[in-house]
Amino acid sequence: MKKLINDPENVAVEMLEGLLLAHSDQLRSVRSDNRALVRAEAPVEGKVGIATGGGSGHLPLFLGYVGKGMLDGVAVGDIFASPSSQQMLDVTRAINGGKGVLYIYGNYGGDVMNFDMAMELADLEGIQVERVVATDDVASMPKGHEEQRRGVAGMFYLYKLAAAKAELGGSLEEVKRIAEKANDNVRTMGVAMTPCILPAVGRPTFEIGDGEMEIGMGIHGEPGIHRGEMRTADSVAETLVASILDDMPVEKGGSVSVLINGLGATPLEELYIVYRAVHQLLKQRDITIYSHYIGEYATSLEMAGMSISILRVDDEFRELLKFPFTTPFRIQN
Amino acid sequence: MKKLINDPENVAVEMLEGLLLAHSDQLRSVRSDNRALVRAEAPVEGKVGIATGGGSGHLPLFLGYVGKGMLDGVAVGDIFASPSSQQMLDVTRAINGGKGVLYIYGNYGGDVMNFDMAMELADLEGIQVERVVATDDVASMPKGHEEQRRGVAGMFYLYKLAAAKAELGGSLEEVKRIAEKANDNVRTMGVAMTPCILPAVGRPTFEIGDGEMEIGMGIHGEPGIHRGEMRTADSVAETLVASILDDMPVEKGGSVSVLINGLGATPLEELYIVYRAVHQLLKQRDITIYSHYIGEYATSLEMAGMSISILRVDDEFRELLKFPFTTPFRIQN
Repeated sequence: MKKLINDPENVAVEMLEGLLLAHSDQLRSVRSDNRALVRAEAPVEGKVGIATGGGSGHLPLFLGYVGKGMLDGVAVGDIFASPSSQQMLDVTRAINGGKGVLYIYGNYGGDVMNFDMAMELADLEGIQVERVVATDDVASMPKGHEEQRRGVAGMFYLYKLAAAKAELGGSLEEVKRIAEKANDNVRTMGVAMTPCILPAVGRPTFEIGDGEMEIGMGIHGEPGIHRGEMRTADSVAETLVASILDDMPVEKGGSVSVLINGLGATPLEELYIVYRAVHQLLKQRDITIYSHYIGEYATSLEMAGMSISILRVDDEFRELLKFPFTTPFRIQN
Repeated sequence: MKKLINDPENVAVEMLEGLLLAHSDQLRSVRSDNRALVRAEAPVEGKVGIATGGGSGHLPLFLGYVGKGMLDGVAVGDIFASPSSQQMLDVTRAINGGKGVLYIYGNYGGDVMNFDMAMELADLEGIQVERVVATDDVASMPKGHEEQRRGVAGMFYLYKLAAAKAELGGSLEEVKRIAEKANDNVRTMGVAMTPCILPAVGRPTFEIGDGEMEIGMGIHGEPGIHRGEMRTADSVAETLVASILDDMPVEKGGSVSVLINGLGATPLEELYIVYRAVHQLLKQRDITIYSHYIGEYATSLEMAGMSISILRVDDEFRELLKFPFTTPFRIQN
């Protein structure tokens, strides 16, 4: 196992220590175990607070999205493990600016269970909490079962759009509506070429042949929908874009935002080659790219592979996408 | 070879096409082969132009540093290959705002030869050009032979500081002085755990055992100074920081900027664990971290590993480090 770590059991702990040493001007820990982080100025009075959470090993997901113009707080689990409901509750308390709190998280059993419990506990304390569960991964369940799908890189758009709405003064109901609308209008599909190794386990999360790739694999190595020979970037992009648009049609003349997300080991050079293909494929369908994000947004440790997310945008989304944000990881529109 | 590419010979070409499709609001191609890119508003009248260049495969190095508050232009070679002198000359012409042009590039044979020739050609056209060659890699040559060392991630500081000086109205001589001062005051040392594969070659750049790492390896897989068993992040950080500070002492009470650079496959989580160690090591020596950069700044395709760069800062550097920049890859102080 070739990892620059110390004790494999302490990866999340030491990562969090390093992160807080680096970014204490922007992030504040509200628990002695550092598993609940909030933006420095939290709670922001009169603004809906937005919290997320999930396992470690996906940086910049989840904690990289806490900052000005973005999320207010995050509960941080161990590598690929859900944080606890108590950690989520501590985030909730620390970011409640009197206008309620929205949870946005991916559809994974542990996260769902613990956020549900945190919601009940917050309710007992008189904090109004709503939730939106991201289910953007087309490959994880067939059409008609959208609500059972996993949340992957497309969750970035739920964050971005809901956060902008909250910064602009939206009510809890309005912010929730935007997050739900984002989830309804975004689809993601990925491809994996190599597994990652969980530090405390020391073995690859799955086996895959030297010349093979797997379409539709999840960010924890969940099985995809097709394993086969390595294909060209253009061919992979065609499959992913077609699957996404079959599931969520975009009309001719429509406009979208595109996220090309690297899973960890895949060089940025390759992500641009994929973007080139996606641009061509959308152009053939008379679809315009309104905005794009290319880089690592939701990783799976050192997994090689990438995902494509497509968001249908309308005037409301166009305005919200323009809103700038600043996190320790990124300053961006 | 598990790469999301099409024809292996076309990786740089298609990467550039994707990049220009994505970022044509910020970058402009001044050659039909796209091998000379300049910032959209070039030439900036009355400002010293700064150009760089080098092989592809190191994103965001080199072309990711062209933008407002940063560099003016870049010549782009094939994967790990120097661009041509003609490509460099085309950049030079396009960024000359009447105050001269500074070349900043890494100390590699092909780049040095071609930039030298471009300098002569530009001189014939009456464009005043100076150059500063980055030689920050401690491991590449012993002390006393600093000028023969390779340039690696620490080159980021030459860019950043010289660019800020140029934006603030510095003359060619002053901007050159800052770049030289940056080079004199920065040292880098890295560790590699896995090789990368050149697309057109299809084989790893070097062989390394399952449980081995190599200290001091270059970003093209150039041999390092010690190959041995995998060690902990803390132990590796200790070796790298000690080597850097042996070579370039920082006095007690001194202050530095630190760059923890991922070589490609290494997760951001691990870079924060390394930052934690570096912070502790410097604190033990009573050295303060004035600013830090943690992420991928100079990669080697999908190589696993990282490098640590340390820059000695004084009041002049502190002011220049504050100057913001905006490139397609990063908006940052």
